[in-house]
Amino acid sequence: MVEIKNPLYNTAAPSTQSIHADGHLHATPDVASSISVSTTFEYNKKDIAANNYGLDQRYVYARSGTPTITKVEATLSTLAEGHAVVFGSGLTAAFAVLVEQRPKKIALGNGYFGIKNVVEQYQRLVPGVQIVGLDCSYSGVDLVWLESPINPNGEVRDISSYALRAHAAGAVLVVDSTLAPPPLSYPFRQGADIVVHSATKFLGGHSDLLAGVVVTRAQKPAESMRAARSVLGTGPGSLDVWLLLRSLRTLSVRVSNQSQTATRLVAFLENHRRLAVVTDCHSPSAQELAIGRRIAAVRHASLQLCATHCSFIETQHPSGFAPVFSIRFATSAQALFVARHLQLHTFATSLGSVESLVDWRHGVDPKEDPCLLRISVGLESFDDLASDWTKTLLALDAHEKSSAKL
Amino acid sequence: MVEIKNPLYNTAAPSTQSIHADGHLHATPDVASSISVSTTFEYNKKDIAANNYGLDQRYVYARSGTPTITKVEATLSTLAEGHAVVFGSGLTAAFAVLVEQRPKKIALGNGYFGIKNVVEQYQRLVPGVQIVGLDCSYSGVDLVWLESPINPNGEVRDISSYALRAHAAGAVLVVDSTLAPPPLSYPFRQGADIVVHSATKFLGGHSDLLAGVVVTRAQKPAESMRAARSVLGTGPGSLDVWLLLRSLRTLSVRVSNQSQTATRLVAFLENHRRLAVVTDCHSPSAQELAIGRRIAAVRHASLQLCATHCSFIETQHPSGFAPVFSIRFATSAQALFVARHLQLHTFATSLGSVESLVDWRHGVDPKEDPCLLRISVGLESFDDLASDWTKTLLALDAHEKSSAKL
Amino acid sequence: MVEIKNPLYNTAAPSTQSIHADGHLHATPDVASSISVSTTFEYNKKDIAANNYGLDQRYVYARSGTPTITKVEATLSTLAEGHAVVFGSGLTAAFAVLVEQRPKKIALGNGYFGIKNVVEQYQRLVPGVQIVGLDCSYSGVDLVWLESPINPNGEVRDISSYALRAHAAGAVLVVDSTLAPPPLSYPFRQGADIVVHSATKFLGGHSDLLAGVVVTRAQKPAESMRAARSVLGTGPGSLDVWLLLRSLRTLSVRVSNQSQTATRLVAFLENHRRLAVVTDCHSPSAQELAIGRRIAAVRHASLQLCATHCSFIETQHPSGFAPVFSIRFATSAQALFVARHLQLHTFATSLGSVESLVDWRHGVDPKEDPCLLRISVGLESFDDLASDWTKTLLALDAHEKSSAKL
Amino acid sequence: MVEIKNPLYNTAAPSTQSIHADGHLHATPDVASSISVSTTFEYNKKDIAANNYGLDQRYVYARSGTPTITKVEATLSTLAEGHAVVFGSGLTAAFAVLVEQRPKKIALGNGYFGIKNVVEQYQRLVPGVQIVGLDCSYSGVDLVWLESPINPNGEVRDISSYALRAHAAGAVLVVDSTLAPPPLSYPFRQGADIVVHSATKFLGGHSDLLAGVVVTRAQKPAESMRAARSVLGTGPGSLDVWLLLRSLRTLSVRVSNQSQTATRLVAFLENHRRLAVVTDCHSPSAQELAIGRRIAAVRHASLQLCATHCSFIETQHPSGFAPVFSIRFATSAQALFVARHLQLHTFATSLGSVESLVDWRHGVDPKEDPCLLRISVGLESFDDLASDWTKTLLALDAHEKSSAKL
Repeated sequence: MVEIKNPLYNTAAPSTQSIHADGHLHATPDVASSISVSTTFEYNKKDIAANNYGLDQRYVYARSGTPTITKVEATLSTLAEGHAVVFGSGLTAAFAVLVEQRPKKIALGNGYFGIKNVVEQYQRLVPGVQIVGLDCSYSGVDLVWLESPINPNGEVRDISSYALRAHAAGAVLVVDSTLAPPPLSYPFRQGADIVVHSATKFLGGHSDLLAGVVVTRAQKPAESMRAARSVLGTGPGSLDVWLLLRSLRTLSVRVSNQSQTATRLVAFLENHRRLAVVTDCHSPSAQELAIGRRIAAVRHASLQLCATHCSFIETQHPSGFAPVFSIRFATSAQALFVARHLQLHTFATSLGSVESLVDWRHGVDPKEDPCLLRISVGLESFDDLASDWTKTLLALDAHEKSSAKL
Repeated sequence: MVEIKNPLYNTAAPSTQSIHADGHLHATPDVASSISVSTTFEYNKKDIAANNYGLDQRYVYARSGTPTITKVEATLSTLAEGHAVVFGSGLTAAFAVLVEQRPKKIALGNGYFGIKNVVEQYQRLVPGVQIVGLDCSYSGVDLVWLESPINPNGEVRDISSYALRAHAAGAVLVVDSTLAPPPLSYPFRQGADIVVHSATKFLGGHSDLLAGVVVTRAQKPAESMRAARSVLGTGPGSLDVWLLLRSLRTLSVRVSNQSQTATRLVAFLENHRRLAVVTDCHSPSAQELAIGRRIAAVRHASLQLCATHCSFIETQHPSGFAPVFSIRFATSAQALFVARHLQLHTFATSLGSVESLVDWRHGVDPKEDPCLLRISVGLESFDDLASDWTKTLLALDAHEKSSAKL
Repeated sequence: MVEIKNPLYNTAAPSTQSIHADGHLHATPDVASSISVSTTFEYNKKDIAANNYGLDQRYVYARSGTPTITKVEATLSTLAEGHAVVFGSGLTAAFAVLVEQRPKKIALGNGYFGIKNVVEQYQRLVPGVQIVGLDCSYSGVDLVWLESPINPNGEVRDISSYALRAHAAGAVLVVDSTLAPPPLSYPFRQGADIVVHSATKFLGGHSDLLAGVVVTRAQKPAESMRAARSVLGTGPGSLDVWLLLRSLRTLSVRVSNQSQTATRLVAFLENHRRLAVVTDCHSPSAQELAIGRRIAAVRHASLQLCATHCSFIETQHPSGFAPVFSIRFATSAQALFVARHLQLHTFATSLGSVESLVDWRHGVDPKEDPCLLRISVGLESFDDLASDWTKTLLALDAHEKSSAKL
Repeated sequence: MVEIKNPLYNTAAPSTQSIHADGHLHATPDVASSISVSTTFEYNKKDIAANNYGLDQRYVYARSGTPTITKVEATLSTLAEGHAVVFGSGLTAAFAVLVEQRPKKIALGNGYFGIKNVVEQYQRLVPGVQIVGLDCSYSGVDLVWLESPINPNGEVRDISSYALRAHAAGAVLVVDSTLAPPPLSYPFRQGADIVVHSATKFLGGHSDLLAGVVVTRAQKPAESMRAARSVLGTGPGSLDVWLLLRSLRTLSVRVSNQSQTATRLVAFLENHRRLAVVTDCHSPSAQELAIGRRIAAVRHASLQLCATHCSFIETQHPSGFAPVFSIRFATSAQALFVARHLQLHTFATSLGSVESLVDWRHGVDPKEDPCLLRISVGLESFDDLASDWTKTLLALDAHEKSSAKL
């Protein structure tokens, strides 16, 4: 495999990397890359290689790679500090890791249910594969699948500690870092061996492309997964990957802004919740009480930090926490009332996009708490989002009161 | 699974099916479908289903399906007389069939090397899978993978006969029909259980999209593969599948035209080859001799029919043969000379596109005869293609003569 | 202006030209051109021209041209036997001709109403511009705008005769050839100076792109219009022009097929109309009568030829007539009944697409006969279209009968 | 014209407007709008309007409007506080303003040369149109065309003062606000009647779409321009306008970030220039001197503010200055040396994109100072850009020194 990274950008800021790390791959003077759609590439008729094809012929057939895929991989390899391979979706990427690593015993925690479905598909094919919990003994475990930050509440797991345990057991540590792409987190710095992203989420960031990415610390597994992708045709679509390249250009400003707004919004909601519970020193207004008293719980890395003071939380997130948090109510009816009432949070699944999203996870994952909503914070202003929550929670309070009267 | 076919079009001509079989799925008045890119879909807030999501909510997340995918599948289901499921590439579709069928013993013939790579990936995962030849005993075989027409020469295999043998052994018959999509062939009529296409080839037809399709006779395997596709994210890209929908509109005129031109071109080349060999009754001109004498062999379904008079060839191809044939020379140098000299046949891999393509298969598949070229005939006029061959073969002859003198 | 045509293809068949005439412009080995979207192009830093920019820098800013535009123009220049310049729509192209020619007195006939709106815009800007009828004296006329075939009925006007009259008066002859692109007609052969197409129609052919094209016999007006396009930003969109390039690959097979089907369908309808009127020698069945008797008139070039035996009709259409015809009924209610009842003819404006379209022109052009429908024939089979008309006309007959009874 | 703005968002923050102001126009549950490509729209067959077409049929033919165009116009109308109409490019928008306003005497200043070309085209058509300087008497002037901020140096003109003068003379004030879109400036607040943007620049922001926009204070001129656009087909391409919609989602974060970085970079360069000139109180290092001494001048709104203390500069730019500035050197050779040496500033024309751009304006506009470079600052980090300038200016200094020795 030819190294596609441009080492010049290893020390640049993430925002600079996002824009220039693929510059050396431009084959034409087009400043914005064209959307490569060709499935086949003419052989060079002049400089002939040993196999009688063109010398330095980088592309032969699109299943094996395209100019846009190479650019995205160069950029992501630089940004994510490893060797990136893109796939058709985050779960496609996850399956590619399993196929390449061929684990016999996998440690897997709670979090995104999709990975469990993928592991089940893997188990259907490979007999005798065992699953143990993330906090069980790693004896015999050859692959640890860690999600941090955790879906649906954006809390952080201590990657270093899992890395120590995994490596002590001879296992590979895979970190699903979907909720906190660069510049929010860099799992290789805490010992991850492989990092996985659903690029559909923050990397894509506009709810308009499906893609996934595996980033490996070592070069060889990336080569191997790229070869398997070529055989199985599991790369991203031509427009999806081009839109991903376009999205990467704004990754830092998007994600930094979303992270800051999310942390402010979490504080806003948690403060109101607490005001309604702890009323000794401060005397909340009637409106403050009405806003806060229907919130059962708010969870987010920023609150986790307040509660635990664990230093790994800050260490893993040098420039901000995941723009995703959860909020819980007393009943599922209340949760659904809120999901349907919010105006600036689109009621739809997925996360990481420019528009704020609210999802009732129980609807897609029956194991999830039906009283819980997952919030993915977009690029709207904090004031507008806070106002949306204020109106919604006041409406919920009024609704509950009028229901109670009946 | 909701049936997505519109039965109104079951008896329409293929050209009509290609254009109208998805008409009932238009959600807006747009005559040409828009390019659906959304990865997530807002929940209906009014008519709420049991799971508290929208009633009749057809789309939730793009990995599980999109409006364009449904339209393509409705059209292909009608055209191909089964239940169609689209994938990211032909080999992705092939792998999906293996994962769904979970065969322990596969009968597999010569032909496209890509399927062998896919089977190898499958074997890496599933221990103990055996491979036998297509014409071996089917004892214990649970899946027969038949390619017809055969890559690279477009010759036809007798599907009915393989179907009888497969079904007698309790095996499923899968037919890779990539080289002859509807209206050229309909393998279910000869007993196939599952039909697979690389939609990148004739179905797509413009060298600008990657996709694959599985069509099943029964509905259940299609449902099961669609569910697995949703878990593994192996569907086609958003632009790829939209371009495929656009391509289907012209499928009949493209493929019929290409089939006719290919059959004429094969006759042209074979006649010249024979003129140079069999010279008793007709006395060929010097130019005719020069054109024909460097051709070692031409192979195509039309010549196979002349040679064998087997009725299955015509039965399987009621409206024309595959627009793909092979031509062989005495040496690989001659083959490469021709591949590089042709002006109207692009020297590149792949097939099925509007432009004629010539591929030296030995370059991508070392097991293939290095003296052989695969020709995929496009939409150029027969006269222009014949003239391109005339010039090229004359140049080859001159080149060989001048080389001989040295 | 650099000549962008490849003279190699001047004598090739139209189907070959459509696929290869831009081949020399490929800057990369991609067999299918990528979708060029860049608005700006990096300057060559090495080979510096007199203006200190890159030598041989073909593209600087997208408003002035893009790689896809050049490819489309090379292909259309070859196909249409002139110098092609593409615009954002057919009417944009028409306006560009007026701005470039700056006529003071325009001869203009009936036909497409859009051109009248464009001329009105031109008159709003340029004081004193006069309009005379196409068959008035050309004294003082400096531009004759001729539409042939004519919208909405696809009949043919005698281009040679108008060319003689126009040139005698010193006027330029512009032919709007939208309804019959190559290979159906070649107006330069009859003396046109400028040919205009709405590429949205047959050239695009899939109802999914807006574009227009001006083709000039002389090179200079093309250069001048290209310069004005660069100043005014009136070129086509990046995807529109790429889809146009893709559409050109199938132009010949699409248009030839549509022309043949249309001519058969016209004969089918006209025969039924006549059977219901002229009943002496043949005794029509009850169903034949019911189909035919509600048709007031059918118009199409093929019927015009039967009626007039004018040789120019065949001369101008060496390989088929426009796939567009009109049908008239006794009342507008009958016309609308038919438009809404047809299943395989989409009730929408526009023409030239893969799907058959029916338009009630009176709805967009109040001057048009409200009893008339314009039919654009697509790629469906003749049998299916004829059956659609049979069912619809029988339903109309039944509806009229039951209405009459009330 | 139906009002397409959602008044709910009139008081929201720009970042919120950018994401939600078109939400009420979604016709399907797709969270990210699909790419609308249809040129024609099926008539509603049930609820029939007076013209016998569908009631509430918003779209008939794409030249007259598409769902994506409406969404972009709703968003831009909200963001820019007026009535927005989009066109194929900024200059197309400018020409549309002239055609609609039909001025006889235009006041026009220095700045972007493209507008001068457009006015020339207008003058070619409309006889007797006069041009006067922006600071001449406005007697008889009916249209004042003001560019602020000014190309190429991003300095600000006093819109209120020009508005007073224009309105006193009965003229319309058009402001080209391309260099400072919302949230950077709001020219209607200072009395503009019409605002024009090249949406290709900051609104698009990725160098991958061509579009322009006119925003009018009153509704009627917008209606009129939309009608003319429909006649002349001068709207944006289908992908261009969809990409514009996508770009608007990130407008605030992009432009705010670029504005801040530009202002810091200007300060960095200007400080070095001054250090090399004014050396009394601070003793610069050798490197600081080497960096600064080749800079002849830096111009930007931030320096203009320092120099003039004019309050309008801050009033017009409540949240930041244009991310565009100019830098001048002693010779054109020095300017070109710098343009070609910078690594993180792409040497290409255009501005407003995610990547920093450097343009030698003299190359496209011979009237421009050949010693001047225009810099458009992208989303790279300030530190990386400053480092790029440091390296480049040191190289220039070394180069000049070694040249001097020769």
